Amino acid sequence: MAGGINYCVRCGAPMEDRFIYGRVRRVCGACEHVHFDDPKVAAVTFIRNGDKVLLVKRSVDPERGKWALPGGYVDAGEAPNAAAIREALEETGLEIEIVRLLDVFFTPNHIRVAPIIIIYEGRMIGGHLQANDDVEEAAWYTADNLPSIAFESTQQMINRWVNNAWG
Amino acid sequence: MAGGINYCVRCGAPMEDRFIYGRVRRVCGACEHVHFDDPKVAAVTFIRNGDKVLLVKRSVDPERGKWALPGGYVDAGEAPNAAAIREALEETGLEIEIVRLLDVFFTPNHIRVAPIIIIYEGRMIGGHLQANDDVEEAAWYTADNLPSIAFESTQQMINRWVNNAWG
Repeated sequence: MAGGINYCVRCGAPMEDRFIYGRVRRVCGACEHVHFDDPKVAAVTFIRNGDKVLLVKRSVDPERGKWALPGGYVDAGEAPNAAAIREALEETGLEIEIVRLLDVFFTPNHIRVAPIIIIYEGRMIGGHLQANDDVEEAAWYTADNLPSIAFESTQQMINRWVNNAWG
Repeated sequence: MAGGINYCVRCGAPMEDRFIYGRVRRVCGACEHVHFDDPKVAAVTFIRNGDKVLLVKRSVDPERGKWALPGGYVDAGEAPNAAAIREALEETGLEIEIVRLLDVFFTPNHIRVAPIIIIYEGRMIGGHLQANDDVEEAAWYTADNLPSIAFESTQQMINRWVNNAWG
């Protein structure tokens, strides 16, 4: 996590290190509030149309200018599959439904993006293709003409697709 | 999330509501630090031994005294499958390996537990059965003699197992 947990979000008093619930955590010296460092989670969709896959060109760092699967952060209280549907609509203008869970990736070396990535297969059910939100283009690509790919998890899913390693 | 995000964890100044990154979030008026409300994630394992499944009796709330699959919170920076292996060892004394991903559940009504639950199939590879950590018993159960079950996700996975809905 970037930066330190210096002050209590509840009462504003200084936080201190304390061994609690199995490891050293930041705890408030005044009100005993415990800081839990929860992982960021992204929900992503692999959407096919015939022999093409839907990719989006990132307009923000990290990996600005490279292409990824549509997706984004899952908010607290949000279902991962609902987050995947929401992000696909926000980024590409397409309405999708979730077909199935494909995999869960963990990529700790992805600084400033989610280390836990839940990937679903999605199916287009409406809408019109139009880049939006934090992407500058959204387009369908065949396996033999792929652009520069942004993330390890996207690359791995594309490899499986190219190698027919999933249906 | 319980309680409010009143003060900045970085600099201790008051937080305020601001519309940023697509929704209203808590932002520090002094240093601009943005609070992201990340979901809690649990990693859980379904471990079979012949016609039995490994369950643990919870010694803590919520659902104290009921039985669940071994599992617990994924920490930031930790791989979900590594968290599943760690929790199985901590709670049951058994060393396991991950066979495959079974499913991802979302249970927003589980107050004080993780709403996102990543469930793996695990296989015992060593250790000795001994309850520990936040469980008071760990035991193997056949489908026709199950104890009181703690969580919706555990119940659903047991139903699939009983109905032979997964291998």
